[in-house]
Order: sequence, then C-alpha cells, then structure tokens
Amino acid sequence: MNTSTKPPYYACIFTSVQNKSVPTALDGYSTLANEMEELAKQQNGYMGIDSASGIIISYWKSSDSMREWKEQVDHRAAQLLGKGRFYNDYHVHIAKVEREYALKKQQ
Amino acid sequence: MNTSTKPPYYACIFTSVQNKSVPTALDGYSTLANEMEELAKQQNGYMGIDSASGIIISYWKSSDSMREWKEQVDHRAAQLLGKGRFYNDYHVHIAKVEREYALKKQQ
Repeated sequence: MNTSTKPPYYACIFTSVQNKSVPTALDGYSTLANEMEELAKQQNGYMGIDSASGIIISYWKSSDSMREWKEQVDHRAAQLLGKGRFYNDYHVHIAKVEREYALKKQQ
Repeated sequence: MNTSTKPPYYACIFTSVQNKSVPTALDGYSTLANEMEELAKQQNGYMGIDSASGIIISYWKSSDSMREWKEQVDHRAAQLLGKGRFYNDYHVHIAKVEREYALKKQQ
C-alpha cells in the first residue's frame, strides 16, 4: 500500500474459502476480481490493497468511503456472485487503523 | 479465526517482502514462524490468526494483550531476526475491529 495518509483510516479485511466442490464454480472469478480491483482504485477514498491467497485487505480514508464502495452497483453484483457461487465461507472485519509502522531497506 | 469474542477487539496486520537476495537469508524462517505461532496461541488475549503468502493478521482481545505479545521476549528476538535478516520490507497496521460479518455455508 502506497499512501501518504496517516491514521486513523479504515481497513476492510476479507478472508475467504473458495468453492472447489463444483468444477465450474470459479469460472470468471479471476477476471471479475481484477475488474473489481481496477474499479476500487477509482473510488473516492481508496488508499490501496494487500492481497494473497484467500486474503484481501483494502484500505480506505474513511468509514464513509468504505461504505460507498460496498454499495457501488457493480461491486454489489460481484458480491452476490461471491456469496452464491465463488465462496463457501468468508469473513469480513471492518477495522479502524490506529497506528502503523514500517521497515523499508535500501535495495 | 474461531472465536466468540465480539467487536471491538484488535487486529495486527503484518505484510512483508522477504529477503531473497541472499540465498541463506531465509534459513530457519519457517521453523521460527511456526514456533511464534504456537507461542502466540499461549498468550493472554490471543484470538486467532489468518495468514497467506506475505500477510499475517493476528487478532487480539485488547490493545494491551497485543502489546504484551509484541514485547514477549522470544517474540522480540524473532522480530530482530525479521528486521535484520528475513525481510526487505514490512508494514504493520494496528487496527481496532469495529464490526464483522461472515458467510458460512453448510458443506
């Protein structure tokens, strides 16, 4: 995540278990995930994203900007597909980042 | 994460880039990471962990319990190894989980 915004700001921690019981359940998943990431970048208040297998953390300047993204119409459609088809389980934690620190070595 | 604790509670979001420029830099990393996870489970206030490549999120009942874990002596030694040897970059976000929701399908 690259940003100059200082805490407090918001993080949406999304962890999931994909549906692998139906062979075609994940058709279109990667394309849609990439589209959603591109769309999120255009949203008001978007700060960045960290993701790895089964975990997506998105950072937002405010609780309001996070909620706007949750309610964005294309994102809502993607959430319905996630709920109905892509995921067996997911867990969302909405958290207020109170402080942060980092190490960055010279390469 | 399995827990019956309701928000608010705390999350420590740790994202990292491993040091792959020195072939031996990551010797012992996996063993130490597993030891730290086992040790964290014994700490007061530990709630659970979500991890994937380059991301570790640990959940804690309070800010105090999170700080106690940060200061735990073996964990401090591990942090020094992380800083000096294992990681090129890392970023820590300390966040207060304000709400959560989940989907869990019957299998």
